[in-house]
Amino acid sequence: MRAKDQPTALDLPMVDPLPPETAKYFDVCQDKLGMIPNVLRAYAFDIDKLNAFTAMYNDLMLAGSGLSKLEREMIAVVVSSINKCFYCLTAHGAAVRQLSGDPALGEMMVMNWRAADLDARQTAMLGFAEKVTKTSAEVTEADRQALRDVGFSDRDIFDIASVTGFFNMSNRVASAIDMRPNPEYHASAR
Amino acid sequence: MRAKDQPTALDLPMVDPLPPETAKYFDVCQDKLGMIPNVLRAYAFDIDKLNAFTAMYNDLMLAGSGLSKLEREMIAVVVSSINKCFYCLTAHGAAVRQLSGDPALGEMMVMNWRAADLDARQTAMLGFAEKVTKTSAEVTEADRQALRDVGFSDRDIFDIASVTGFFNMSNRVASAIDMRPNPEYHASAR
Amino acid sequence: MRAKDQPTALDLPMVDPLPPETAKYFDVCQDKLGMIPNVLRAYAFDIDKLNAFTAMYNDLMLAGSGLSKLEREMIAVVVSSINKCFYCLTAHGAAVRQLSGDPALGEMMVMNWRAADLDARQTAMLGFAEKVTKTSAEVTEADRQALRDVGFSDRDIFDIASVTGFFNMSNRVASAIDMRPNPEYHASAR
Amino acid sequence: MRAKDQPTALDLPMVDPLPPETAKYFDVCQDKLGMIPNVLRAYAFDIDKLNAFTAMYNDLMLAGSGLSKLEREMIAVVVSSINKCFYCLTAHGAAVRQLSGDPALGEMMVMNWRAADLDARQTAMLGFAEKVTKTSAEVTEADRQALRDVGFSDRDIFDIASVTGFFNMSNRVASAIDMRPNPEYHASAR
Amino acid sequence: MRAKDQPTALDLPMVDPLPPETAKYFDVCQDKLGMIPNVLRAYAFDIDKLNAFTAMYNDLMLAGSGLSKLEREMIAVVVSSINKCFYCLTAHGAAVRQLSGDPALGEMMVMNWRAADLDARQTAMLGFAEKVTKTSAEVTEADRQALRDVGFSDRDIFDIASVTGFFNMSNRVASAIDMRPNPEYHASAR
Amino acid sequence: MRAKDQPTALDLPMVDPLPPETAKYFDVCQDKLGMIPNVLRAYAFDIDKLNAFTAMYNDLMLAGSGLSKLEREMIAVVVSSINKCFYCLTAHGAAVRQLSGDPALGEMMVMNWRAADLDARQTAMLGFAEKVTKTSAEVTEADRQALRDVGFSDRDIFDIASVTGFFNMSNRVASAIDMRPNPEYHASAR
Repeated sequence: MRAKDQPTALDLPMVDPLPPETAKYFDVCQDKLGMIPNVLRAYAFDIDKLNAFTAMYNDLMLAGSGLSKLEREMIAVVVSSINKCFYCLTAHGAAVRQLSGDPALGEMMVMNWRAADLDARQTAMLGFAEKVTKTSAEVTEADRQALRDVGFSDRDIFDIASVTGFFNMSNRVASAIDMRPNPEYHASAR
Repeated sequence: MRAKDQPTALDLPMVDPLPPETAKYFDVCQDKLGMIPNVLRAYAFDIDKLNAFTAMYNDLMLAGSGLSKLEREMIAVVVSSINKCFYCLTAHGAAVRQLSGDPALGEMMVMNWRAADLDARQTAMLGFAEKVTKTSAEVTEADRQALRDVGFSDRDIFDIASVTGFFNMSNRVASAIDMRPNPEYHASAR
Repeated sequence: MRAKDQPTALDLPMVDPLPPETAKYFDVCQDKLGMIPNVLRAYAFDIDKLNAFTAMYNDLMLAGSGLSKLEREMIAVVVSSINKCFYCLTAHGAAVRQLSGDPALGEMMVMNWRAADLDARQTAMLGFAEKVTKTSAEVTEADRQALRDVGFSDRDIFDIASVTGFFNMSNRVASAIDMRPNPEYHASAR
Repeated sequence: MRAKDQPTALDLPMVDPLPPETAKYFDVCQDKLGMIPNVLRAYAFDIDKLNAFTAMYNDLMLAGSGLSKLEREMIAVVVSSINKCFYCLTAHGAAVRQLSGDPALGEMMVMNWRAADLDARQTAMLGFAEKVTKTSAEVTEADRQALRDVGFSDRDIFDIASVTGFFNMSNRVASAIDMRPNPEYHASAR
Repeated sequence: MRAKDQPTALDLPMVDPLPPETAKYFDVCQDKLGMIPNVLRAYAFDIDKLNAFTAMYNDLMLAGSGLSKLEREMIAVVVSSINKCFYCLTAHGAAVRQLSGDPALGEMMVMNWRAADLDARQTAMLGFAEKVTKTSAEVTEADRQALRDVGFSDRDIFDIASVTGFFNMSNRVASAIDMRPNPEYHASAR
Repeated sequence: MRAKDQPTALDLPMVDPLPPETAKYFDVCQDKLGMIPNVLRAYAFDIDKLNAFTAMYNDLMLAGSGLSKLEREMIAVVVSSINKCFYCLTAHGAAVRQLSGDPALGEMMVMNWRAADLDARQTAMLGFAEKVTKTSAEVTEADRQALRDVGFSDRDIFDIASVTGFFNMSNRVASAIDMRPNPEYHASAR
């Protein structure tokens, strides 16, 4: 039986005490988000793993890119919808609602992205993310060219591929260990 | 048309000159492996992305774990076989051949892991990796318990999940951008 | 281009004026729900079709049954999640939130029902609904017996099968004609 | 063990005596078809459910439509072939043979509709029914437009969607409760 | 456009004149079956290919085996149903009807073999044929043992595997070249 | 437990002594290949079955055809990769390496044929083989015409279909009885 406060089905308690750098990072989360996302608590049994995860996450989702932060979150949710990852749909669905100011858009990404009235660029972006998620072995140059044709650069294509790949990892880790999202997400930005 | 030396289908040249740390790391690769793996060259257009990738990779595949390095490579190849990723099957198939000293084992992981005569522990490990790859949303506590029943700790389960997740990311990025393996892998450890 | 107010992608205006019985039914909806559900407006181009739909719907979802109304709505959402029907996930996800008073439960049914901590009875019920949705041809007596073993009667099994079947119809009609849910559902019972 | 005469695997006897309206309807069936279709006997444990089913069925399959009765039966059989529903393939396969006077056409609908030499209109119709059955979430405006391009009206599209949806319901209910077709169908119109 | 009499979509006329051995074999077919099965006419553009096909077919389906001829035909139809091969379903569906004297059994094999009330032995046989057809890479010793447990010998298992394999070949060749069955099959043994 | 030397999981010893024709054929194999392929030993419990298998195999893979022997082996490996057949991937992967003199080409066929830089003709050939393997029921005249458009004759199309069909048989038989390849293949032509 998992303890009420335990973020996953695994009995892997956080390092105690947390190293000062980590403690400070968690304090920032608490201040800015009003919570420490459970994914961070889940990795905090091993600070190297936590740091590797956050470094990659922050680079992909927050660093400079030809994709807006909202677009990266849209990819995150579409991938998570295919993989039916409860954690990621909850956390990143909230992010789409918040960044877009459009709660229905968040729901569409969770439920069926084709229901959204997207322009050609975002349709191509999500179509590529879907194909890479479902049948990556069938991707060919024609698929990349279709992205270039709607204005994406090669660097943008790298970013679409990377974000898609990242959530295919994250979805599987979260589902494999039954990671549970912070309850605050559900009502956020509705 | 991609240049002969280009590691992917994207026109994203390496930072030039490489920062000293990176240059040194590449030299170590050249010395120890006789090559710079193309995945590193592919990420070297952006040193932050390269560092995030190598930090996570090295932690997962080389740091301490209840899983042997060979077992982690076996998971890598089984996942890559499901996703039919040419890059990862080539590079990590070679690693299985090398670490095991058993070329046929490498081929079995590439072709059909059920052909290998594995013990109950490794069968459960690869069965879990397969399920997490194909239908992660259907993983339940019974699947985790089956791993515990053959002797895996919760920390081991985390590692199986993480390695499985990582190659589900890597496979997709590699296929999405048509990353090509260094030709040296093909004849290695046959 | 569909008109802003049009509930589907098809140009099939409502009968005008509506017959008195229908007008009255729509008034009741407006009073009780604060809206006329778009599915009713979508069928109202042909009153016989509307009546056939509402008769079946009301019998299945509102008439007496060994399944609670909430349980029937849970089945509705799980089926719709498999079929990724934006309309039904939106409308019936709201119903689960409302009937259960548990917004997270509604999200779990939409995102991945296995994330919910359900008892053996409801787990069996949703597992059967999932199998009937995905691979109905493989249902055997053992599947029905598993429902009896957790306390369902033959009549209950009929009801689980019927509700599952109904949403497999409804999901497909809604997606085939791009039926859009009333926007009021999104914020309801969060 | 099911009784020899029982139309499904569930022990749900018909209301006894049947209400006069129902008894009369069953008499008409016996006179016109030489049998009471088992689907009616299966629903007759609850007259409201029976009436809701027959009202929807008769409206969809027998009322006026831009689709001929044969075309609606062709859709019924193609959907049932995808879902491998023994009851519906038997009953509606017979209907295609009878309405078309072409036994081989009935067999083609049951076995593989692409084997039939159909015109562009019927090919589009069955292709749409197949997509709505298998991957309804991927239907887009382009699919509807393809139907309009071969001459279907928006009302016709509604009818194709509705018949397709209906048999996706009916197939699942029949398989879930192991409904068995009347034996008379097998030799009919060969 | 294919000629009316042409057995496939390919323009590959029969050797003319047929060699005496072949002509004699075709005469025997005409006498015993009332027709020359189109599969023989389809291969008769090359007598070596025809002979290789008939030698394998006759050995598998007609030579001594622990499986009855009917059981081999049941496997043939179940495999062909999964692959939706119009030619083989038509020809071998007729064979099941004829050999069993039970038209409904033939229909069940075509439509959904799980609808038939089979004993444990035949259920295991068809379950194995289904798994070998759909997911042969997942067959393990446990699957073979399940066949031994209901009384099959290792030789019988070879025969089940061989017949299953053969129709997975035949179905694909027939569908790939649009081979059409002789119309006589449709009404046969109804 | 299978004996060390036994080529499959079934206890079906070779006819002893082998008939002179068979013994001679096996001697030729030993001389030319340095081994007797295990598939021949597996069928040698019944000489009629062995002869039927070798007659078909030799006609398909070695007799005259518009497809080169290498092309036929490429099809063999691509089909075996989809079906994940350890025996056929091992034996025919070696054949591709040997006939092409290009070890990487063999690996690409095993791992993901889309990774190879093939011309339009071979791309169409393998695309057709893939479709016939995965979804033969959906092959239409357009697929055959696409082969004609890149220069294949109707006879060539027959050969592509036949080789594809054959390995869909062979893969399933090999996996169903756990046929193991001769170890010599692994290091061959690397």
